[in-house]
Amino acid sequence: MSRTPLPQVLAARARDLIRSHVYRAGDRMPSVREFSRMHGVAVSTGVEAYRILEAEGLLQARPKSGYYVRLRQASSEPIATEPVSIPAHYTRAEVLTAMERNRGLLHAMAFATPNPALLPTRRLAYITSRILRDRPEEAMNYSHPAGLRELREHIAQRMVLAGVAVSPDDLVLTNGCQEAMALALRATCEPGSTVLVESPCFYGVLQLMQVLGYRCVPLKTDPHLGLSLEWTEATLRRLKEDGERVRALVVVPNFHNPLGSQMPDTRKAQLVELAARYNLILIEDDAYGELAFSDHRPRLIRAFDPEGAVLSCGSFSKTLAPGFRVGWVAAGRWRTAIEQLKLALSLCNPSMTHLALADYLDSGFYDGLLRKSRRVYREHTHLMRQHILTHFPVGTRVSTPAGGFVLWVQLPAGFDSVAAYNEAVQAGIGFTPGTLFSTDDTYRNCLRLSAATWNETVAAAVRRLGHLVASQTAASRN
Amino acid sequence: MSRTPLPQVLAARARDLIRSHVYRAGDRMPSVREFSRMHGVAVSTGVEAYRILEAEGLLQARPKSGYYVRLRQASSEPIATEPVSIPAHYTRAEVLTAMERNRGLLHAMAFATPNPALLPTRRLAYITSRILRDRPEEAMNYSHPAGLRELREHIAQRMVLAGVAVSPDDLVLTNGCQEAMALALRATCEPGSTVLVESPCFYGVLQLMQVLGYRCVPLKTDPHLGLSLEWTEATLRRLKEDGERVRALVVVPNFHNPLGSQMPDTRKAQLVELAARYNLILIEDDAYGELAFSDHRPRLIRAFDPEGAVLSCGSFSKTLAPGFRVGWVAAGRWRTAIEQLKLALSLCNPSMTHLALADYLDSGFYDGLLRKSRRVYREHTHLMRQHILTHFPVGTRVSTPAGGFVLWVQLPAGFDSVAAYNEAVQAGIGFTPGTLFSTDDTYRNCLRLSAATWNETVAAAVRRLGHLVASQTAASRN
Repeated sequence: MSRTPLPQVLAARARDLIRSHVYRAGDRMPSVREFSRMHGVAVSTGVEAYRILEAEGLLQARPKSGYYVRLRQASSEPIATEPVSIPAHYTRAEVLTAMERNRGLLHAMAFATPNPALLPTRRLAYITSRILRDRPEEAMNYSHPAGLRELREHIAQRMVLAGVAVSPDDLVLTNGCQEAMALALRATCEPGSTVLVESPCFYGVLQLMQVLGYRCVPLKTDPHLGLSLEWTEATLRRLKEDGERVRALVVVPNFHNPLGSQMPDTRKAQLVELAARYNLILIEDDAYGELAFSDHRPRLIRAFDPEGAVLSCGSFSKTLAPGFRVGWVAAGRWRTAIEQLKLALSLCNPSMTHLALADYLDSGFYDGLLRKSRRVYREHTHLMRQHILTHFPVGTRVSTPAGGFVLWVQLPAGFDSVAAYNEAVQAGIGFTPGTLFSTDDTYRNCLRLSAATWNETVAAAVRRLGHLVASQTAASRN
Repeated sequence: MSRTPLPQVLAARARDLIRSHVYRAGDRMPSVREFSRMHGVAVSTGVEAYRILEAEGLLQARPKSGYYVRLRQASSEPIATEPVSIPAHYTRAEVLTAMERNRGLLHAMAFATPNPALLPTRRLAYITSRILRDRPEEAMNYSHPAGLRELREHIAQRMVLAGVAVSPDDLVLTNGCQEAMALALRATCEPGSTVLVESPCFYGVLQLMQVLGYRCVPLKTDPHLGLSLEWTEATLRRLKEDGERVRALVVVPNFHNPLGSQMPDTRKAQLVELAARYNLILIEDDAYGELAFSDHRPRLIRAFDPEGAVLSCGSFSKTLAPGFRVGWVAAGRWRTAIEQLKLALSLCNPSMTHLALADYLDSGFYDGLLRKSRRVYREHTHLMRQHILTHFPVGTRVSTPAGGFVLWVQLPAGFDSVAAYNEAVQAGIGFTPGTLFSTDDTYRNCLRLSAATWNETVAAAVRRLGHLVASQTAASRN
C-alpha cells in the first residue's frame, strides 16, 4: 500500500487530468462532492485535495460556483504543432499516421483533397439546414444499413451514364469509397487469399491488403493505359502453374491514383474476359471516374460484365463533399453479403448526409459542377506539371493524367522521398512519399502531388520543393 | 449472337431501367445522343429504341426537352410494403436483414431506438445549421481519423464521471458503438481467436464474432448482477486445462442489452483481477451507461484497471442522436493500432457531426437531458413491464432492468419466437426474437421489447402481442 496521504493522491490524480487536457484552462472541475464520491473518499478529503491544487496555482475557487482550472496555466503553454517525422524504419501505417498528424501544417499538395472552391459547400449547407428543419426526425434517426433509397436511385442513374444498368437495390451506401473497398474485399476474399493489385497502387488499397490479411501480388501498369493485361495474364498463368489460387484483382480503371491513367474500353472488355477465364473477381475503384479531362465520362469495367461479377465502388468525396463520407458499392451477386457486413461492422451511416446529397442531385446542378471541375482540374494539373518540369532537376518525369487531379513525379534514382518528406515538412510543404504506393521500395524515388489547388502559394511551394529535391539528389551523388 | 434487332435490344435495356426504378415516373431519360453513345450505336438506333417505348406508353416525348418516364405507369403500381418473413432455416444475419427490411412497418418495440421526444433534435439541427453557415469548409472536409479533438475532450471529461482518467489522445471516434466494438476486437484478436461473450449477448456482438471469424464461448449471466464471475473463472480454468488460449472477453457491465443488469463495482474490480491472472483482454460496451435508473452513473470496468488493458466503447446514439453515428473507443495500449485500423477501413467520419456534438456539449444541457431521460425510461420500462405481466400468459417472466430501456421477456418453454415474429409482423407489431441473442437455440422462447416509447398505441400492441403469444403457447401444448 502507498503511504502517500490520501488528499495528496487525489490531488495528483486531478493534476494528471489537467496536464493531459481532460480539463483545460477555464473549465469547471467536478464538484468536490462528485470528485470525492468518484474516488470513494470523504468530502473533507476531496476539499483538501482541491486546496492543494489551489495553493499550487492550478485551480481557482469561485464562490458559489466551484473550482476552475486557472487561465495562466494553459495560456503560457506552447501550442504543440511540431511536424511528426517519419521514422527511419517505417511501415506504411506509420507514414500515414505521421502524415495525418501533420495535416494541419501541410500543404494542399499532400492529400488528394478536392479544391474547396469547386465544392458546392454553401448549397449543401443550405440544403442540410433545410432538411434538419423540415425532417428532423428522419435526419436524426438510424438509417437502413444500405442507406437512403432516393440517393441510391440517383447513383443508379449516374451509373447508367457509365454504361452500367444497376438496380438501386443492388447498391449499398458506405462511409466513403474506402469503406466500400473494404466491404467489397471482405465479402469476396477470405483472409489469406491472394489478391492482385496494380503497381503503383493507391496506398488505401495496400492498407486494406495488410489489415485484412491478404497476400498481394503487384502488377505492371502503363502510365497512359493503366493495368498491363499482358503482365496480368502472364502472372495468372504463372501462379496457376505454381498451384496458387488467385481470388481477386483490385483495379482503378478510370484516372488511376497516382498515375491518372485511363484504361481503354477495349481493354476493359478484355479484362472481364480474362477474369472469367481465371475465375477471378474484379473490384474496381471509381473514386475519380467523374473527373475526366475529356467531355466523356468513361465507362466502368462493370459495363462490360453482363454477369454482375464485377464489384464497382465509388463516392462523392472527390466531387461534392469529402466530409460527408458517402460512398457506395454496386455489389452484384454479393449484395446480401455486403449489406450484412455493413450492418455487422458499423450498422449504418448518418442519415442527414444521404438526405442532403439526394436533394442536391434532385436540383440538377451536378452536371454543371462536374463540367467546371473537369476544366479546372485539367488546367491546374497542366500548370503544375509545367512548373515541376521547369523547377525540378533534369531527369524528372511527370505523369500526364487523363483525369482526376494528382501528378506522379519520378525523380532520378538515388532520390529518397522519405528523407525529403521529413525535410519538406519542416519547411511547411507536404507531398505523398512514393514509398506509400507499393509494398516494397520500388517507388522510393517518386512522389505524388495533388494539383487540386493551383495559385501563387502552391507554385512557390512547388519551386521550393524543386530546390529541396535538387539539393538532395546532388548530395546523394557525392 | 442474338438475332433480336438492335433497337429492340436497346428498348429492352431501357425498359429494365424503368422497371427496376432507376428511372421513375416523371424522370427525364438520358438524351437520345447519350443513350446511343452509352451503347455504342448510331443515334438513329437510339431514336428508334425510344420510339418503341413511346409506343408502349412507357415514355413520353416532350418537345425540346427529351423523353420522360410516363406518370401513369408508376402511379398504378402497388407500393411494395409486404413484411419479410424470417426463413425457417435461418442465420442471425438473415433474421436481421428481414428485420431491417420490415423497419418501416414495425413498431418502436422492435429496435433499441431512443424515444424521439427525448432527443435534442431541434437544438442539434440549429447547431448543425449554424456550423454549416459559420465553418462550412471545416464541416465539409475530411477530419482526422481519430475525430475532432474538442469532442474527444468532452468525452474524456464524461469518462472522469465514470471513474476513468483518460487522455483525449487515447480516444478514437467511430461510426457508432458498433464500429468501436469492431475496431476494438480487430485490434486485439486475430481471426480464429477464442473470445468469451455473455449469454444472452447483444446480437451486434455475435454478428461481429461471426464476421470477424472468432470462436466464441458463452458465459452465464445473472439477471441482476450480469456476468457470472464464478462461471467465467471455471470456464477459463477448463479451457486452460484443454490447452485453449482465450484472448478476450466482451462484456456489457452497465445496463446489459437485453437484460438491463448492472454489474456491482466489487465485481468489476474482481473481473479486472481475473483478467490479469489469465492474461485476458477486456472489451466493455457502455452504450447504455449514461441511462441509469438511479441517480449515479455507474463506473466503467476501466475505472478498476490502472494498466489501460481494458478497452471501453461508448456512443451518443442512445442519448443524443442515433443518426449522427458518433461512438468512441478508449483504446489504452492499442490506441495507435486502432487509429491505423480506422484509417485503413473507413478513413474518418463526417466532420459536421463531431462539430455539432462538441458544440452541444459546450452548452451544458446534456446533464439535464440525461436526468430527464433516466426518469422517463425508468417510468416507461416499469409501465411496460406491468402491462406484459398483466396481458401475457401465466408463466411469463420479465427482467427488472437497472437502466437503459429494453425488457427481456421469457415465455413458457415451447414458445417459438421466430414463428411468433412472422405472425406479429403481419399484424404490424415488431419485437426482437430471442434467438438473436445466442449462437444456439437457448433463447427461442424469449423476446426483447424496447420500452423507449410508451403510449396507448404501444400499450395496445403489447396487449395484442400478449394474445398472439397466448394462442401460440396454447397451440404448442396441443
